[in-house]
Amino acid sequence: MVKIAVDLMGGDNAPEAIVDGVMKAVEEDPSIEIMAYGLKGSYTGTHPRIEFIEVTEKVQSEDDPVRAVRRKKDSSLVRAAKAVKDGAAAACVSAGNTGAIMSAGLFVVGRIKGIERPAIASIIPNTTGKGIMLLDMGANSDNKPKHLYQFAVMASIYMEGIENRKNPEVGLVNIGSEDNKGNEVTRGAFELLKDSDLNFTGNFETRDIISGTIDIAVTDGFTGNIVLKTIEGTAKSMMTEVKDIFLKNTKNKLAAGVLKKDFGSIKDLLDYRKVGGAPLLGLDGYVLKAHGSSDAHAFHNAVKQSKKMAESGALDKIKEKVGED
Amino acid sequence: MVKIAVDLMGGDNAPEAIVDGVMKAVEEDPSIEIMAYGLKGSYTGTHPRIEFIEVTEKVQSEDDPVRAVRRKKDSSLVRAAKAVKDGAAAACVSAGNTGAIMSAGLFVVGRIKGIERPAIASIIPNTTGKGIMLLDMGANSDNKPKHLYQFAVMASIYMEGIENRKNPEVGLVNIGSEDNKGNEVTRGAFELLKDSDLNFTGNFETRDIISGTIDIAVTDGFTGNIVLKTIEGTAKSMMTEVKDIFLKNTKNKLAAGVLKKDFGSIKDLLDYRKVGGAPLLGLDGYVLKAHGSSDAHAFHNAVKQSKKMAESGALDKIKEKVGED
Repeated sequence: MVKIAVDLMGGDNAPEAIVDGVMKAVEEDPSIEIMAYGLKGSYTGTHPRIEFIEVTEKVQSEDDPVRAVRRKKDSSLVRAAKAVKDGAAAACVSAGNTGAIMSAGLFVVGRIKGIERPAIASIIPNTTGKGIMLLDMGANSDNKPKHLYQFAVMASIYMEGIENRKNPEVGLVNIGSEDNKGNEVTRGAFELLKDSDLNFTGNFETRDIISGTIDIAVTDGFTGNIVLKTIEGTAKSMMTEVKDIFLKNTKNKLAAGVLKKDFGSIKDLLDYRKVGGAPLLGLDGYVLKAHGSSDAHAFHNAVKQSKKMAESGALDKIKEKVGED
Repeated sequence: MVKIAVDLMGGDNAPEAIVDGVMKAVEEDPSIEIMAYGLKGSYTGTHPRIEFIEVTEKVQSEDDPVRAVRRKKDSSLVRAAKAVKDGAAAACVSAGNTGAIMSAGLFVVGRIKGIERPAIASIIPNTTGKGIMLLDMGANSDNKPKHLYQFAVMASIYMEGIENRKNPEVGLVNIGSEDNKGNEVTRGAFELLKDSDLNFTGNFETRDIISGTIDIAVTDGFTGNIVLKTIEGTAKSMMTEVKDIFLKNTKNKLAAGVLKKDFGSIKDLLDYRKVGGAPLLGLDGYVLKAHGSSDAHAFHNAVKQSKKMAESGALDKIKEKVGED
């Protein structure tokens, strides 16, 4: 049995979609047990492997993350994180506000000793079908070379243990492929990565993010967040243009009807629901952030992913590796 | 008459496409005179408003930019920059290596006194039809808040004087819309921009870069370069997917035939040729970098743009403004 603590109140479609996602997960996998934290009435089912724990508060998306986590001790998010801290649950997952989840991770679950800055990692779906793990996605805004090195270590262990990528290739997000390119942070990180036992493949340019074959792209939290939003914005604008063309006139509408199904694959290509949640790496426990607009399908995948994390032994491997450095 | 110095040897399609672009420009506009710098035989025409100046060297794309500019004194690029420095030409334009053009700008033309860091600016085409000027695109890799403020000043003067955007809106590229978001550099730049007399509209998220209505997005050179490459990569990958769908089978090919013309508009949307070159701002002279893969049409536009720059009085306005600060 693997116990997963779930924040029923986080996300745009909470609690309904979260509850539905949880139901799917327990029905599919008999080894999953859920500790479901939510406000009164958020769960009314009677599944034997779902324990509902009623709380009195929830973190709102407009709350200041740090303050909310410090003050709302009986919120569904803080209680779910507490379950991980206390060892009652093997992992926790929330579709709530990223900042609040990170704060709960830092202040309730705590950092791994030796990890200077935890990071949020996300797998960017791409045309290779495998996707590239990009981190940090914005847990940090200013990073030092050592942080990027630690991100690479943690992501390598994650990708090997949870995504089954053997000896994953690590690239350093940079503005050129030559070794000496970039800013102070990337130049420093390059040296650390080059001298490490990671499978470092050198600088990586984000023009290859949607077609690249590396497994992990490390960068500071500011740049990672910018890359993610630029991809989202570009893809969305292009899809809007495509839609406008499809609806332009009757002739186009007919032609679009023929192509519609295939065009779905482009949408799928950038579909967050397939890739699951974003793990917070560097915390002394498994914490997963599901996408804020998760539907039941997406949250179901996030629960599955958190179970995989809990069973991977990644935490011990990270601790061991950090101890060596 | 406006005299433009042209580097005939820079760019993937040099010198043929460059010469053709120059021909188009002089034929279209009787007020343009060209000083054309090239290796022997690169120009064999006899147009009365094209003065061919034979040089003995050219900067190669694989040359180290700084060293090449310092050593190759008789290269077409350095000579064209020298013409601006000496006042023989009102502006210069090259489709060569960006780093080399920047080096020629810095070491031959020189900085405007008071401008700490010149920047490369480029107008990113977008769905509004106007495009957004993004800078710095990579002339710098580490920037301070004051640099970003100066970028905003120079870009505002450029957009008003050359692109006819009255009181242009300036956004600060950042990872959230709230005032206190971002890293040390953006937080510092936010304060400077907020207190300035520029039309500062606050933080700008790059998810809006292809659909946004602001005129100028300022950022450090590392981030600007990352944004550009992420847009390019995402757009290119999506267009590849579209192409694959169009060619998938006979049924799709027929449907694609109907839509093909309209899909051209998406390609146009991200077509660098329409938006011309990237001005180097902060130099004590007008220097324009045309796209490396410029064809005759693109280079023609770059020559027109450099003429507009030369006639704008932007340099004096930047000097005046910097003198005030």
